[in-house]
Amino acid sequence: MLVLGLDPGSRCTGVGLVAEESGVLRLVLARALYLPQGKELDEKLGFLFEELIKIIDTYRPGEAAIEDVFFAANARSALRLGQARGAAITACAWKNLKVFSYEPTRVKNSIVGVGRASKEQVAFMVKQMLNSKNSWPLDVSDALAVAITHLNARRLNTFLEKT
Amino acid sequence: MLVLGLDPGSRCTGVGLVAEESGVLRLVLARALYLPQGKELDEKLGFLFEELIKIIDTYRPGEAAIEDVFFAANARSALRLGQARGAAITACAWKNLKVFSYEPTRVKNSIVGVGRASKEQVAFMVKQMLNSKNSWPLDVSDALAVAITHLNARRLNTFLEKT
Repeated sequence: MLVLGLDPGSRCTGVGLVAEESGVLRLVLARALYLPQGKELDEKLGFLFEELIKIIDTYRPGEAAIEDVFFAANARSALRLGQARGAAITACAWKNLKVFSYEPTRVKNSIVGVGRASKEQVAFMVKQMLNSKNSWPLDVSDALAVAITHLNARRLNTFLEKT
Repeated sequence: MLVLGLDPGSRCTGVGLVAEESGVLRLVLARALYLPQGKELDEKLGFLFEELIKIIDTYRPGEAAIEDVFFAANARSALRLGQARGAAITACAWKNLKVFSYEPTRVKNSIVGVGRASKEQVAFMVKQMLNSKNSWPLDVSDALAVAITHLNARRLNTFLEKT
């Protein structure tokens, strides 16, 4: 199972692809998509959409995962975040990739074991879980974290169905 | 010149196509796209994206116009609005349709002649300008209004370039 994790933002969208094979996690792709600065909104969102389409076409993930958003600093930044989120989710929908969303506390619990972990703690644990020496921007760590959370949730569901 | 006007919302996106031929405005399409209720966000945004793609492919507008958003009731509704806006603008970008955005006061000025007009006043004037007896949802009137605003702005720019 290959899962596409997304952490959309108005400046940068974190993209992570994580595979699970026989219970072992494997890092497939960790990338930060920086939206072209100084461009109009339609060009920025078009860029994000097209880059995601390319990644989906190249790697053919089976499912996608994204964090729920519960608050933003203010309405203006929430709108900007929403626009990027809308473009990213639309790219998945266009490619018939089902998007699963997880509450931030669920992601932190799944990765660090507590719901109130810092982004740095999440990043550290993601590196450990993927057995990687790379350091990624936090947006990328968050994208990988939600992909891993979804793989964990799937495994648990499969287990529960069997028992 | 055929212009696609858009008024995205988290429940309904107003779509208006207005043509200008020799200075005369002509209504081509007025449609409300209601997002499928009770569906997941990816299905809603995928629906909006695909419906807009169909409309763009069918009518082949030359440019698109959308209202700027300056505030929303709260961050949560701003995020929802942003997601729909992101899907709509992405559909235009995907079809190489340039999106022009206008401040709400500019639209009201262009349609009613004052920047503080009500939505109902805008709707009334849009009906008059398009010589239509139909009554549309306000989202649709707003979409037609921003399309007309863009046609007016284009005409003014053409005039200014000539003089």
